[in-house]
Amino acid sequence: MLNPHFQKLKTAYIFPIIEKKLAELQKEHPNQKIINLGVGDVSLPLAPKVAEAICAATQEMTREARGYGPCGGYDFLKEAICKNEYVQFGISPDEIFISDGANADISCLQELFDENAVVAIPKPSYPVYRDATLLSGKKLVFLTLTEEEGFIPRPPKERVDLVYLCTPCNPTGVAMNKIDLEEWIVWAKENRCILLIDNVYNAFASSDEIPPSIYALEGADEVAIEIRSFSKCAGFTGLRCGYSVIPKTLHVSELNSLWQKQIDIKTNGISYPIQKGAEACYRPDVREELQEQIATYQMSAKVLRETLITHHQTFFGGENAPYIWWKTPDGMDSWEFFDQLLTTSRIVTIPGSGFGPSGEGYVRLSCFLSNPLAQEAAHALQHHFTTV
Amino acid sequence: MLNPHFQKLKTAYIFPIIEKKLAELQKEHPNQKIINLGVGDVSLPLAPKVAEAICAATQEMTREARGYGPCGGYDFLKEAICKNEYVQFGISPDEIFISDGANADISCLQELFDENAVVAIPKPSYPVYRDATLLSGKKLVFLTLTEEEGFIPRPPKERVDLVYLCTPCNPTGVAMNKIDLEEWIVWAKENRCILLIDNVYNAFASSDEIPPSIYALEGADEVAIEIRSFSKCAGFTGLRCGYSVIPKTLHVSELNSLWQKQIDIKTNGISYPIQKGAEACYRPDVREELQEQIATYQMSAKVLRETLITHHQTFFGGENAPYIWWKTPDGMDSWEFFDQLLTTSRIVTIPGSGFGPSGEGYVRLSCFLSNPLAQEAAHALQHHFTTV
Repeated sequence: MLNPHFQKLKTAYIFPIIEKKLAELQKEHPNQKIINLGVGDVSLPLAPKVAEAICAATQEMTREARGYGPCGGYDFLKEAICKNEYVQFGISPDEIFISDGANADISCLQELFDENAVVAIPKPSYPVYRDATLLSGKKLVFLTLTEEEGFIPRPPKERVDLVYLCTPCNPTGVAMNKIDLEEWIVWAKENRCILLIDNVYNAFASSDEIPPSIYALEGADEVAIEIRSFSKCAGFTGLRCGYSVIPKTLHVSELNSLWQKQIDIKTNGISYPIQKGAEACYRPDVREELQEQIATYQMSAKVLRETLITHHQTFFGGENAPYIWWKTPDGMDSWEFFDQLLTTSRIVTIPGSGFGPSGEGYVRLSCFLSNPLAQEAAHALQHHFTTV
Repeated sequence: MLNPHFQKLKTAYIFPIIEKKLAELQKEHPNQKIINLGVGDVSLPLAPKVAEAICAATQEMTREARGYGPCGGYDFLKEAICKNEYVQFGISPDEIFISDGANADISCLQELFDENAVVAIPKPSYPVYRDATLLSGKKLVFLTLTEEEGFIPRPPKERVDLVYLCTPCNPTGVAMNKIDLEEWIVWAKENRCILLIDNVYNAFASSDEIPPSIYALEGADEVAIEIRSFSKCAGFTGLRCGYSVIPKTLHVSELNSLWQKQIDIKTNGISYPIQKGAEACYRPDVREELQEQIATYQMSAKVLRETLITHHQTFFGGENAPYIWWKTPDGMDSWEFFDQLLTTSRIVTIPGSGFGPSGEGYVRLSCFLSNPLAQEAAHALQHHFTTV
């Protein structure tokens, strides 16, 4: 009677374990400050002009009722996204679907495919790729990311229908460049495969070699769905707004209309004031403010990177992504290194094994920090290096 | 490769057809006012104190970042709901899950059951029960509602695993009383079945015979999940917030923890300011304001009911629900009657056949109207009765 696929899920023990360790440490040393580089959540406050737009829309509703909006989002937001992000790549507003965050799209878009579809996911990766695929009863194929290949995923040998790619990548902090992505596009065309590009960290890719969107590349509109969010680029984690681009030109041309059907059944649209807040992110004065926030996080990443470089550490990321993927010294296991960092420097990380067994041997540092906090973290790390 | 279940869905042609008919009428008679008793959406503006709470929470986020909240909602809201709605029935906050609206819960809760589960739905009913069930590949059994039984659903003869019940009911406007519901609880216990109670119109049930919640009845916590929303009782259709109660005492005791797993994978929580707005609905001053809104809609329903009574019409509902289910005269087909009402009185309804073939022979009137508009509608109906 119950959905049998739940049994395939591994209980995610990692956060409760981290919280327990923190609670113990704080009990022993109640006056010591702990610096949390663990959870990848924004730390800078919401831009006041975005808040103003949300409040104005909310107040508007006290003057005139605003009922259900269109399930895939209001045209004003689709048009703003299209104009500012996609029009130069030939994408139109009716290929953009607003959601209450990338998480829902990442987990539900694959429901458009049948149970026999084979889904490839990188390992290590954001656990939702795996869990949503298992829960839908589909077969998983892993693309093992290796240090030798700089953690860039490469097309699999076997036949697959759907591939999750995260770029800039959580947890490795590595962004795929034009050549990497072109290889995937060619392969997906040849193999009649659909790429699900998780691009929620796009704002952090500063290198010229990283395309601003998959659709900047020839042929991507035949093979790729792109998923984005206002969470990380505009501090919307607590507000909930994201979007997916599903081109009508995909080789599986029905996906655009099937997704519309699915959201017509399963949602009743996204909060109106939140969509007005998302629209405001594209006003020139707000864009400037948001770019400053991104620049702050990038500067914090730079501070952490430089500390690791000074101490001859091996790591990836932090340049085009808000994460640093730090190799544990001397083959130490990732929980052991987590404990050591916590004890010596009061720094919380995420053990790489939390992203699957292939994350073993690494810890993830989040760079969503104010610059003063990044400096504190750098000092704490220096203390760590002098201690061990 | 594609999910084959999409092919089972009938395209919902009804709203585009209604819109086309309206557009044609407005083109022919541009100065005539059309009174829309069709779509069941709130028409009174948002309570200003709810808007204030949303704005205060949004402004709070400009002072300090608020990242991801718990996937099933903040404790402050769960506790407010529990204290005001459920504590007297023995329900605890960890049995309450906040969602972005009842629609998502109605369509996704059944994903906890396997593909072989048999799902019973009333006919006529809200189309999402049918479409979500078909899309998940489950088998449907229909509970035909009849005029003879006052449109009260009765337990089926065959074995089913899950039953959708809507009370107060959309579209029939009929609410199930204590005896009707107790019959279902006894049956569900004997047949090891789970009842999904769609209770989003609960605020409109004013009769003492209608329980305030399914959990007011003995044994309901062993067999029933209750789904509610702030949409209709507090004008949240455009804001998106609802909740489901999944007791830990259900005979399928895993449902509470499986739902937590599912939302942990598929969502990242509900917008923080919207949850603060929902919490504000329980402040005594706001409750009073919201009760006045409900009273307004109830008065509008009364005005429409009395008009129909005066003209010896057969209809159901409008007393404990915001809908009136009006039997077409002389066995007229529901689209034909829709057209007649539109032409004679400029009143828009929903043809009953839009809720499935068993809705044929009825039209639905929505009572989500201001009192002056209800009076206008009553006059227009009187005009209709003198014309035909």
